[in-house]
Amino acid sequence: MRDLSRDNRFLSINIATVREQWNLRQAIEGIARAGIPALSVWRDKLAELGLKEARRLIKSHGLRVSGLCRGGLFTGKGRGGLAEALQDNRRAVDEAAELEAACLVLIAGGLVPGSRDIAEARRIVGEGLAELLPYARAAGVPLAIEPLHPMYAADRACINTLAEANDLCDALGEGIGLALDVYHVWWDPELMAQIARAGKERLLAFHVCDWLVPTRDILNDRGMMGDGVIDIRTLRAAVEAQGFDGYCEIEIFSNDWWAKPMDDVLRTCIERHRTVV
Amino acid sequence: MRDLSRDNRFLSINIATVREQWNLRQAIEGIARAGIPALSVWRDKLAELGLKEARRLIKSHGLRVSGLCRGGLFTGKGRGGLAEALQDNRRAVDEAAELEAACLVLIAGGLVPGSRDIAEARRIVGEGLAELLPYARAAGVPLAIEPLHPMYAADRACINTLAEANDLCDALGEGIGLALDVYHVWWDPELMAQIARAGKERLLAFHVCDWLVPTRDILNDRGMMGDGVIDIRTLRAAVEAQGFDGYCEIEIFSNDWWAKPMDDVLRTCIERHRTVV
Repeated sequence: MRDLSRDNRFLSINIATVREQWNLRQAIEGIARAGIPALSVWRDKLAELGLKEARRLIKSHGLRVSGLCRGGLFTGKGRGGLAEALQDNRRAVDEAAELEAACLVLIAGGLVPGSRDIAEARRIVGEGLAELLPYARAAGVPLAIEPLHPMYAADRACINTLAEANDLCDALGEGIGLALDVYHVWWDPELMAQIARAGKERLLAFHVCDWLVPTRDILNDRGMMGDGVIDIRTLRAAVEAQGFDGYCEIEIFSNDWWAKPMDDVLRTCIERHRTVV
Repeated sequence: MRDLSRDNRFLSINIATVREQWNLRQAIEGIARAGIPALSVWRDKLAELGLKEARRLIKSHGLRVSGLCRGGLFTGKGRGGLAEALQDNRRAVDEAAELEAACLVLIAGGLVPGSRDIAEARRIVGEGLAELLPYARAAGVPLAIEPLHPMYAADRACINTLAEANDLCDALGEGIGLALDVYHVWWDPELMAQIARAGKERLLAFHVCDWLVPTRDILNDRGMMGDGVIDIRTLRAAVEAQGFDGYCEIEIFSNDWWAKPMDDVLRTCIERHRTVV
């Protein structure tokens, strides 16, 4: 297991963590200023800054991109809207390639609006991934399916367990893997078995934050690592036992942390990365 | 599949649905007044009224008890507190027997306070169930494990899927089954397979409400059937295909519904039972 206690080599900040106060330019500068070597970029912030300028700034600050968030969302307009969703996903692949992102993170999308058929939503996701994958392979961009917590099944992502993500990878072949966010999967009784099933090839991203008790908001009350109940180190040991050697990416959706001074937040991220992750 | 559209024969009201305004006496009277034949009782309300008086009132109104809520909670004081938890669970078995409840509903309990080890919490639950089961068998009270949604894994129940509940039943043998609440399990990709695996013998209770989008409160924003995204009828078809012939028990934790006139809420329950469940 890697020793994270001495430096920030394996630390990445997902810019969702700083999104309420910083645009992408500020995030790049702030992350570099903090001595953190990598970031994960969201497409809305990327569009604001522009792809070329983002690439230039990221390069000039010597940063790496641990992931681009996010593609997927195949179900939002039903099967009839899949072509449109795929068009946007191909743009996301292009952006990920341009940023030399380690992967394009995909969330499935929820139920088709007006439908209660989650099995159908899952079929659409499978079809969307199958359509997108050849394009991503050609661009050299690994696709990372991120299973989201079951509390987001209705409106964000109908892929909710590592088992489902692994099943999709089995069906689709090379070039697709998964993003494991401890927040979404820590409760899963099959977690360890499914990490082993995924193996190094499929473990494309490792996201950390914490589950707070109580959780006061279903979306934006995620915790700083160490403040909640997730046994993060055991999960990191499990992915590293498979050979994962990528970044530990901190992604915290939190009204509390978004309200603090961002440089302080990054200092706390560094400290917790070294002591808790 | 049963036709629920013509009468209330298979309708039960879990008194959590009316708990903010009605004590157990009022609930019994109100449910009988509405022409509903069964209820599910919570132990806190039962303690307030007294077991003998509750039994007398329930009988005199001609009601049946579809379940007693709730036992379990084995993990609250860790392994060292298991004996105390078991003592309380044996009292719950006695109460269920006295009320001739169809089952005693058990929720597992969350993480041991101060611990992040969910596997250990699950082991304690298994041990607690194994200890309790002979007592319940002797009393003729079926134990019903209710898997709760993974968003309650930390602080309420570390048994979160039907697969886990079925695994426990496999390990423990006769006299124990499960309570399926559509709210907790609707998202589960293994749901249909695990209902089939459970079969008639283990399907001891069927609870209904709905998942709202958005969900504004992690505890008390459950929906009236038909107001959310759960395909309730398909789930009822699945349990009835296994031979389930018990009550459809309405259990709604909702700040909104708790604030309405209770007789109106029961009228809505009846209407939705007939048209949506």
